[in-house]
Amino acid sequence: MTPQTPFPARVPDLSGVRGAVREVPAYPFTPIDVPHKLDQNENPYDFPADLKRLATERMLARPWNRYPDLHAETLAARIAAFEDWDPAGVVLTPGSNLLIKLLTELGGIGQTVLTVSPTFSVYTLEAQMLGANLVQVPLNPDFSLPVEGLKAALRDNPPGVLYVTQPHAPTGFVDAQAAVRELVEAADGWVVVLDEAYYQYSGTDSRPLVREGANRLSLRTFSKAWGLAGIRLGYALTSPTLAEHLRKLVPAFNIGVLAEAALEVALENPGYVQERAQEVRRERGRIQAALQDHPLWQVLPSQANFYLLRTPDAEAAYRHLLDHGIVVRRQDRLPGLTGCLRVAVGTPAENDALIAAARAFR
Amino acid sequence: MTPQTPFPARVPDLSGVRGAVREVPAYPFTPIDVPHKLDQNENPYDFPADLKRLATERMLARPWNRYPDLHAETLAARIAAFEDWDPAGVVLTPGSNLLIKLLTELGGIGQTVLTVSPTFSVYTLEAQMLGANLVQVPLNPDFSLPVEGLKAALRDNPPGVLYVTQPHAPTGFVDAQAAVRELVEAADGWVVVLDEAYYQYSGTDSRPLVREGANRLSLRTFSKAWGLAGIRLGYALTSPTLAEHLRKLVPAFNIGVLAEAALEVALENPGYVQERAQEVRRERGRIQAALQDHPLWQVLPSQANFYLLRTPDAEAAYRHLLDHGIVVRRQDRLPGLTGCLRVAVGTPAENDALIAAARAFR
Repeated sequence: MTPQTPFPARVPDLSGVRGAVREVPAYPFTPIDVPHKLDQNENPYDFPADLKRLATERMLARPWNRYPDLHAETLAARIAAFEDWDPAGVVLTPGSNLLIKLLTELGGIGQTVLTVSPTFSVYTLEAQMLGANLVQVPLNPDFSLPVEGLKAALRDNPPGVLYVTQPHAPTGFVDAQAAVRELVEAADGWVVVLDEAYYQYSGTDSRPLVREGANRLSLRTFSKAWGLAGIRLGYALTSPTLAEHLRKLVPAFNIGVLAEAALEVALENPGYVQERAQEVRRERGRIQAALQDHPLWQVLPSQANFYLLRTPDAEAAYRHLLDHGIVVRRQDRLPGLTGCLRVAVGTPAENDALIAAARAFR
Repeated sequence: MTPQTPFPARVPDLSGVRGAVREVPAYPFTPIDVPHKLDQNENPYDFPADLKRLATERMLARPWNRYPDLHAETLAARIAAFEDWDPAGVVLTPGSNLLIKLLTELGGIGQTVLTVSPTFSVYTLEAQMLGANLVQVPLNPDFSLPVEGLKAALRDNPPGVLYVTQPHAPTGFVDAQAAVRELVEAADGWVVVLDEAYYQYSGTDSRPLVREGANRLSLRTFSKAWGLAGIRLGYALTSPTLAEHLRKLVPAFNIGVLAEAALEVALENPGYVQERAQEVRRERGRIQAALQDHPLWQVLPSQANFYLLRTPDAEAAYRHLLDHGIVVRRQDRLPGLTGCLRVAVGTPAENDALIAAARAFR
């Protein structure tokens, strides 16, 4: 079937579309179908088959025609118990990308969004589209936080949202606790977001720091260590006060009954998460060691489930890996990341394929 | 488990939280557990059991650890085929509440949001929180669109987003096609949203009108006639040009693999939808007839799966129904709706219960 009538050919008048949205390019992602998908920092293992079965049984027993909880209260309580957090301070969305949008709505529109450079592109895209004053301070050359520069920006701009990513994406760098604390303590009044999408791979935990200030928030996800990127669930741990405001911006009934059932089962059976995170840490070390004396490519240290590969020619390296059935993500156009590719830690077999392909490059 | 340390008792400095968000009250909804839930305009029947089974089998066969499509391209193509629409003009979100937020981001922030009064509260809440200039024109006393007033508002305000709801919520009123066309044609340049959440109950269809202008958009949902409110899927049918801009605002990967599987199965087996919509229409007429000579309560005509019940005392009527195990939604504080309750059409048994309770009121 094709549309009955094409849309009129004349240039349409879309003056109601805001300029900030027109000017921003679309989110850059093109799926590529190859055997080894190392381009999205996913968990390479599916959710365990017996748990999938358990989850679908639970789905079948629930009505699909009724709206779910207004703010996923039941699931929020489960997460609160798991995280040792006040349920009134837990906010859920279908993926943390949406939570980042809501945080921009909470404190960014017409105000400031402060982050480093390079940084996670969703922070900056949302800031640009929603009309925030976007301030970015370059990372130090070793990828550590530019604490003094950020503190100056906190002083020089009216408050808004500050993003602190630990481990950092796309570098995988983790800062000294004292540096993070110094920065966060300088951000009184700001909505301070500690993005911890990859914390299970670094063993870090911002919860003690977040508990100390009602303006602080930890952003976590089921998409990485939990291996549930397909289910869509991101969440914030924050103070009941900040959560109350943030929740106004969360679309009503936004977590469906299917995701709810799957996540309940995951939270009741979390044992696999640490096991797999452990394997990622082991494999990360193994890859690093295996490519230590590579003549051209350098594996940069990382505390996440991905690492940067610095090469003399990112385009050539990317093509070479693709020829070996491996897709990774180019990061070489980002400031400070010349020649860099971002590679997810895969299964041991996938990592072997990556190592072999790297060694075959000359 | 309880939090290890409570948040500090002193009044927190949350100056980074925008005033517009602070000032808006939370979305007003309190779930009430009674036998007959007629307060959310839901389909009273669950998704058919055999289709649920089919959907979960499909879920089990897919990976849960991988990110879904960037913009649910596969599902969008299925919806496009079902709706006879260009796939490039289909935009999906987990529930149309989110789509309304994104439309406010597209054309509302710092611009105008124009709608009637009373109207669907999500339009106005998002406009208020995101910093749009909200303009509302009162409905005519018979609930028809105030076309002249809206056209004046279109002339008097810089463009933004115009909402036209057919059937209207919460009145269930459907306007003459010519009136809708006159209004939409006067809104060149505006993002014109034809919200059709309930179109299967009225037999109306805005697609021909939407096809005629690239600035127009039909908003549809799986939550009502499809009986899938628990799954969360709303979508827009629009021009590829407008869709391209709107899609930038859609969080990446926002439709999960579970919802995707369920909706594919629904789209392959849509037969039940019309059957049930037919029953709603029949039941709506039956309720209207049964209460025609009620001494105090009046069923207002509706083309949706809900209707307004006008009573001399909404509080008393609401309490009375609750005593009979029926929960409905109060609308009596909205302009023009003094004494009104909004009641969903339920199963025949539920509607019998409603009729009996109404007759028992004196």
